Amino acid sequence: MRLATIANGSPDGQLVVVSADGARALAADIPNLLAAITDWRAAEPVLFALAKRVNAGHGEAFDPALLRAPLPRSWQWLDGSAFGTHGELMQIAFNLPPIETDRPLMYQGMSDRFYGPGDPVPFANEADGIDFEGEFGVIVDRVPMGITPEQALGHIKLVVQINDWSLRAIAPVEMKTGFGWVQAKPPCSMAPFAVTPTALGEAWRDGRVCMDLTVEWNGRPFGRANGAAMDFGFHDLIAHAARTRELVAGTIIGSGTVSNANYAEVGSSCISEVRAIEIIRDGKPTTPFMACGDTIRMEARTASNQSPFGRIDQCVSVVRTG
Amino acid sequence: MRLATIANGSPDGQLVVVSADGARALAADIPNLLAAITDWRAAEPVLFALAKRVNAGHGEAFDPALLRAPLPRSWQWLDGSAFGTHGELMQIAFNLPPIETDRPLMYQGMSDRFYGPGDPVPFANEADGIDFEGEFGVIVDRVPMGITPEQALGHIKLVVQINDWSLRAIAPVEMKTGFGWVQAKPPCSMAPFAVTPTALGEAWRDGRVCMDLTVEWNGRPFGRANGAAMDFGFHDLIAHAARTRELVAGTIIGSGTVSNANYAEVGSSCISEVRAIEIIRDGKPTTPFMACGDTIRMEARTASNQSPFGRIDQCVSVVRTG
Repeated sequence: MRLATIANGSPDGQLVVVSADGARALAADIPNLLAAITDWRAAEPVLFALAKRVNAGHGEAFDPALLRAPLPRSWQWLDGSAFGTHGELMQIAFNLPPIETDRPLMYQGMSDRFYGPGDPVPFANEADGIDFEGEFGVIVDRVPMGITPEQALGHIKLVVQINDWSLRAIAPVEMKTGFGWVQAKPPCSMAPFAVTPTALGEAWRDGRVCMDLTVEWNGRPFGRANGAAMDFGFHDLIAHAARTRELVAGTIIGSGTVSNANYAEVGSSCISEVRAIEIIRDGKPTTPFMACGDTIRMEARTASNQSPFGRIDQCVSVVRTG
Repeated sequence: MRLATIANGSPDGQLVVVSADGARALAADIPNLLAAITDWRAAEPVLFALAKRVNAGHGEAFDPALLRAPLPRSWQWLDGSAFGTHGELMQIAFNLPPIETDRPLMYQGMSDRFYGPGDPVPFANEADGIDFEGEFGVIVDRVPMGITPEQALGHIKLVVQINDWSLRAIAPVEMKTGFGWVQAKPPCSMAPFAVTPTALGEAWRDGRVCMDLTVEWNGRPFGRANGAAMDFGFHDLIAHAARTRELVAGTIIGSGTVSNANYAEVGSSCISEVRAIEIIRDGKPTTPFMACGDTIRMEARTASNQSPFGRIDQCVSVVRTG
């Protein structure tokens, strides 16, 4: 089952069920995805029935320009950093010592707005070091405090693909305080379709999205790292987040930037990693961060070249460059 | 004007306008405070008209046991750490070096639930180091990206009093990663009344709540530090938060733990500070953290002994001590 949200003038948009070929949609009789995930036990059979109908040929073609983030806002966004290669390279990029911990890394970011897959994205200033971060995420229903990773798996109701926009000139400054990021993390973007884990088939294994995330910056191939390489699965990240607090239904948990040890072969999912690789190789970074008008495309593909989440395809717009 | 939220079975509760003496309330014809702050321009005159009526003797007595947090959930909670004395003592308590920065300190915490003033508060484990943190907060309407501190002042629509529950055995571990706190910060509690800045009169000066915050732990006086000592005013914290991102209406900005340089005289607003003072004085901390059944009271008082926010009065309940 694949879900999307169509712009209808409301903050949460109109929930629709999309056909497997992505050509048609049926509007759900549930106001929006946040309402659905809040009462998933009631919503799931209703949505599955619609999915059956839309896959049988019912429903109508929809305008892709109206696609918003499948969950345009939610109560909580907790982003992990579960790819060890990414973590190591970022500390080099930030000129910081390695992080010594055996626990999952996680911060809370803003969840009141997720940009849609085609929205131009406004930034305050090019000098802030505008960077993309391609990653995967999961949406959970209510998770009780103290749950085990095994129990957590069953709370993963939907899987999404995310661009976690980041400002690299600010990130290490905020990181050194120990308080995490505020200014360095403006809103994220989401690919158009939220997908049930079972609909991912073989690509959903051990709480991981085992797909290549293809990234193109200004139309040029940039990376195709695979999501299987997470040091912790999403179920581990959920159990970590819920150790001392219940997680509200609709909480989105992120994987952190998808990154593989063979980055020389598969490339990267953010600019900052490439700059770290340049520092290791050449002593200094040469790839610049993004400029106004730059475009970014991100699309996860299965081994059989399916694209279950659809494509993020957006451009940078800068509010002021002063 | 003072606003409160009465339990009515819904997640956001019923918004009411409370009389100046706190004895009576009138239900607003606006569903809840989150809806009101989302369209404050429309809500404000409606609520002011109700305040006039309730202060003229209309309305009914209400059951204080039904009082929830004035804003039981919101889209964003950004907590500062604006009291320099608190920041210095906490680094000693955590056995960490001083934070070298001239910027406001701020992290994003969970906003999907704020406990009411009398709710028992569940924790996973006493061994996590359960601590209270008495602080003030403000609620803003929509704040554009890149606003100045002067402009930010006008976006402060309501002032609240908060207990930012913290787990001290986890906090320094998470802080060392640079990612900020997730496990160390379960939901906060709020005192019953959200108050307009003008209703605070002389106690609202330069974007600061210039009131003593009286704290009693298990019925014994613990602190009465004053809110005037913030290194940055709330307007500075808002401008900091909005440097690279718009702030959604309903965002709550916290002051961080109220703390004064003359702590030997006025006491503290959290246990961890007292333990730092013991480390400085005796070489080791002796005051334990909270235990199951412990009570905490917090009430800000004006120079004329008014209590505009009402009182937080709650107890610790531990889910498991294993």
